[in-house]
Amino acid sequence: MEELMGHLSETDLFNGLTVEQIRKVLTISRKVNFNKNEVIMEEGQIGDAMYIIIEGVVQVIKTLTLKGVEEDSDGKNKVFTRLDAKQHPVFGEIALLEESERTATVMAETDCVFYEIRKDDFLRLAESDYEIGYRILLNLARIVSSRLRKVNEDAIKLTTVLSLVLREN
Amino acid sequence: MEELMGHLSETDLFNGLTVEQIRKVLTISRKVNFNKNEVIMEEGQIGDAMYIIIEGVVQVIKTLTLKGVEEDSDGKNKVFTRLDAKQHPVFGEIALLEESERTATVMAETDCVFYEIRKDDFLRLAESDYEIGYRILLNLARIVSSRLRKVNEDAIKLTTVLSLVLREN
Repeated sequence: MEELMGHLSETDLFNGLTVEQIRKVLTISRKVNFNKNEVIMEEGQIGDAMYIIIEGVVQVIKTLTLKGVEEDSDGKNKVFTRLDAKQHPVFGEIALLEESERTATVMAETDCVFYEIRKDDFLRLAESDYEIGYRILLNLARIVSSRLRKVNEDAIKLTTVLSLVLREN
Repeated sequence: MEELMGHLSETDLFNGLTVEQIRKVLTISRKVNFNKNEVIMEEGQIGDAMYIIIEGVVQVIKTLTLKGVEEDSDGKNKVFTRLDAKQHPVFGEIALLEESERTATVMAETDCVFYEIRKDDFLRLAESDYEIGYRILLNLARIVSSRLRKVNEDAIKLTTVLSLVLREN
């Protein structure tokens, strides 16, 4: 338990929370196991839960182009990112805010252990303990805004490449 | 004052807040005026405040390509969005979470009135009233995540166009 708390307190989502507060969040979380190669979530599906990786490695697989435009059997139009428990990562976090389509597929690269937090449980806890709600949402909003900054930069690079390619034609 | 409260309660940022709670946020906000054509914030500058548009229209101007790659004197590599007070919009909201570079330039298209909220003032208020902190951050995180979804879609479209252009060559 102590090892788990140490791990969780280094997760960005729990930054600034006391051990007591993290314990309270654990009461609404569910420990889930996935086997190697199992799919945890699929791009385009509606999600209502987020995950904290406790053990193992997952692959995040994102389609880069619109459906029907590219053959994707060779995975050429996909981008892969690895998330390792060692970095205390989370994924699917936008589902805590609202039910929405998953923007990536996540697959277990090794056997994995996660903590799963469902939106409704989180919002109920937050409404009964605003301090926990505030601290987690501050962290969550920062995580989402850093992802936004990253995608913004990617979009600028893409437009730059596109404008260079078009200029050469 | 009643008209102002009516306007503010329709702003996404204040969704779910009581009139009393909005009043409390107003005590840490500052009413600011900008003249037509004045620049409110500049892309790339560090910002520590967000704005709620009360009166007027602003232009949001975003550079699409990396510096030095394209001539931008003709504005070809920029995208323009208009925000009208009638839609109760906010801008610069990521500055409430952390000091960060502005991702767009914002210019007053007409004379404008805004409420400005500074990060430090907001965080101090939130630490003294977690319910207000929680509700505003829930709204803010939803605003940021909807912007993320939009930029994600743009990036997918860009990659699609790029892959089609490259395939033709």
